[in-house]
Amino acid sequence: MIAILRINHRSARDKRISTHIGLVARAFLAEKIIYSGEHDESLIDSVNKIKNEWGGKFSAEYSKDYKKTITEYKNKGFKIAHLTMYGLPLESRINEIKKLKNLLIIVGGEKVPRDVYEKADYNLSITAQPHSEVSALAITLDRIAGGKELSHDFKDAKKRIKPNALGKTFY
Amino acid sequence: MIAILRINHRSARDKRISTHIGLVARAFLAEKIIYSGEHDESLIDSVNKIKNEWGGKFSAEYSKDYKKTITEYKNKGFKIAHLTMYGLPLESRINEIKKLKNLLIIVGGEKVPRDVYEKADYNLSITAQPHSEVSALAITLDRIAGGKELSHDFKDAKKRIKPNALGKTFY
Repeated sequence: MIAILRINHRSARDKRISTHIGLVARAFLAEKIIYSGEHDESLIDSVNKIKNEWGGKFSAEYSKDYKKTITEYKNKGFKIAHLTMYGLPLESRINEIKKLKNLLIIVGGEKVPRDVYEKADYNLSITAQPHSEVSALAITLDRIAGGKELSHDFKDAKKRIKPNALGKTFY
Repeated sequence: MIAILRINHRSARDKRISTHIGLVARAFLAEKIIYSGEHDESLIDSVNKIKNEWGGKFSAEYSKDYKKTITEYKNKGFKIAHLTMYGLPLESRINEIKKLKNLLIIVGGEKVPRDVYEKADYNLSITAQPHSEVSALAITLDRIAGGKELSHDFKDAKKRIKPNALGKTFY
C-alpha cells in the first residue's frame, strides 16, 4: 500500500497545490492522502468527493501531528520516502522502492524540518531542479506503477471519460 | 523546439499553479513558456529568475492573445498538442509526437474554449482522471524526453545541487 503524507499545509496559500497533490495521489494509484499542517476540512471533502465520483480505493484524511503519523506508519512496517530536490536521484533507488509492500511518501512544501530528512529511509530527488511537489509526486508514482496508471480503469466509477480526438465524451 | 502555452491565467487564483507549470516546463526540458490570460509580470519575472540561477535555454513571456500565438506557431511549422483529460491517451500518440521537430503544448485551466480543441493537432489525455495541469505537463514532457530530464545537467547553472542521502548540498 502506498500512502502520501502532505506536511505543512497552509489553508490560504496552498489550497490548490494541496488539492492537486491529493488528486495526483489517487489518479496515480496511491491509496491514501494524509494532510498535516492547518486543518482544512473543505480540502479533504473536495478530494474525497472526487474519489466518490471517479472511483478507486482511496481516502483523504487529516493528521494533527505529522511526527506521530510517521512513527505510526514506521511501526506498521512502512518505509518512508521523502521527496526533496536535495535527495538522491529517484532512478538510483527505484528498483528497491518498487519492491516495497508498504510505502509512505512525504511531500513537503517550503522549509521542511530536519527531522523529516532524518526519519526518512529515502530522501529522493526528481531531477535536482526546482519545479513542483505535484510533478515530483506524479513522476515518483508513475515510476512505481511502471506507467500503468495511464490506462488504469477505476471499476466503481460513477464518472468515466471516453477518449475523444476532438470533444468531451462521458460514458 | 518545445514551447508551452498556458492559457486563461488568473493572477490571484492561479499564481502558484502557473509558476509550477513554468518551472516544470524548464526542468523537463521545454525551451519556452508563454502565459496568456491576465498579465502578471511578477509571474514571468519569477520564472525567468529561476532560469537565471539554475541555467538552461529557457524563457518566459506573455501573450495578450493566445489565438494569435497559436496561429503564429502553426505558421512557423509547429504542431499543436492540447492537454485535456477528455483527449486521446498520450501513450497512443507518443511515438508520433516524439518525432516532431517543433511542438507547442497548450495547458489550459478550467473551461477551455472549443476553438482550442479544434485548432490542436492532438488533444491528449494523461490518464482520463482529474488531477493537475502540473502533473499532466510533467508526464508529457517526461515521455517526450524519454526520462532524460531526470539526470539532465544545465551547463550554465549558477546554482547546482549535489545529491545527498540526508541533507542539502550545493556545488
